[in-house]
Amino acid sequence: MSEKNNITGAHLKIQARLMLDEEIAMGPGKADLLDAIAATGSISAAGKQMGMSYRRTWLLVDTMNRCFQQPIVETATGGAHGGGTRLTDYGIDILKRYRQLQADIQTISAQHFPEFKPLLRKKPVPPAS
Amino acid sequence: MSEKNNITGAHLKIQARLMLDEEIAMGPGKADLLDAIAATGSISAAGKQMGMSYRRTWLLVDTMNRCFQQPIVETATGGAHGGGTRLTDYGIDILKRYRQLQADIQTISAQHFPEFKPLLRKKPVPPAS
Repeated sequence: MSEKNNITGAHLKIQARLMLDEEIAMGPGKADLLDAIAATGSISAAGKQMGMSYRRTWLLVDTMNRCFQQPIVETATGGAHGGGTRLTDYGIDILKRYRQLQADIQTISAQHFPEFKPLLRKKPVPPAS
Repeated sequence: MSEKNNITGAHLKIQARLMLDEEIAMGPGKADLLDAIAATGSISAAGKQMGMSYRRTWLLVDTMNRCFQQPIVETATGGAHGGGTRLTDYGIDILKRYRQLQADIQTISAQHFPEFKPLLRKKPVPPAS
């Protein structure tokens, strides 16, 4: 998941989550998963690429489908290679809008971070424990 | 903590965290804690107001002090009522900058949310289980 980043030093981490009650309809991890499904044509290959179990991958897709009005991904049945999975036009549109939101947030982040950076130490002082 | 909100329906949740390595130097909960310390003049009263244990409250203050170059809060010793705690000018400045960042994020959120809202259901479909 994209949430587990290993960025060191000072940085501003801004996460946008589209919520429906307590469900995350769209967020950083789900957006990356949709990109991976688009790239691999397969839910299981996309999950593998992101280091997630098939079950967790499937649950993320299921959450999106339970939150949005229309399906985000579609699976073709039959054909020479069995079914492939791809994003619906509806899913592509949602992903594009979410990436635009992230880009706007990135702009805000780049504007504000220089104010904060010089206030922080190079490394946190270890806890006294 | 402000992270545990109970907002229902569709909403965009955008959280900004100023990170130093893996420590959260400033975030929604710490900003609210600083406001509560300013209002109550006491770390323990501020924690109580936010429903946190004294230990957790103290750890949040300690993390800020371990991440920033200068102290965020100062405790007066002695005096008629023992020591009171207040924000340093340095802490007040950081809090003000963080609240401005949150306000700019809120503007972005208000611009984007109307695009997403009609795409979501009224309620998530329950999981098939």
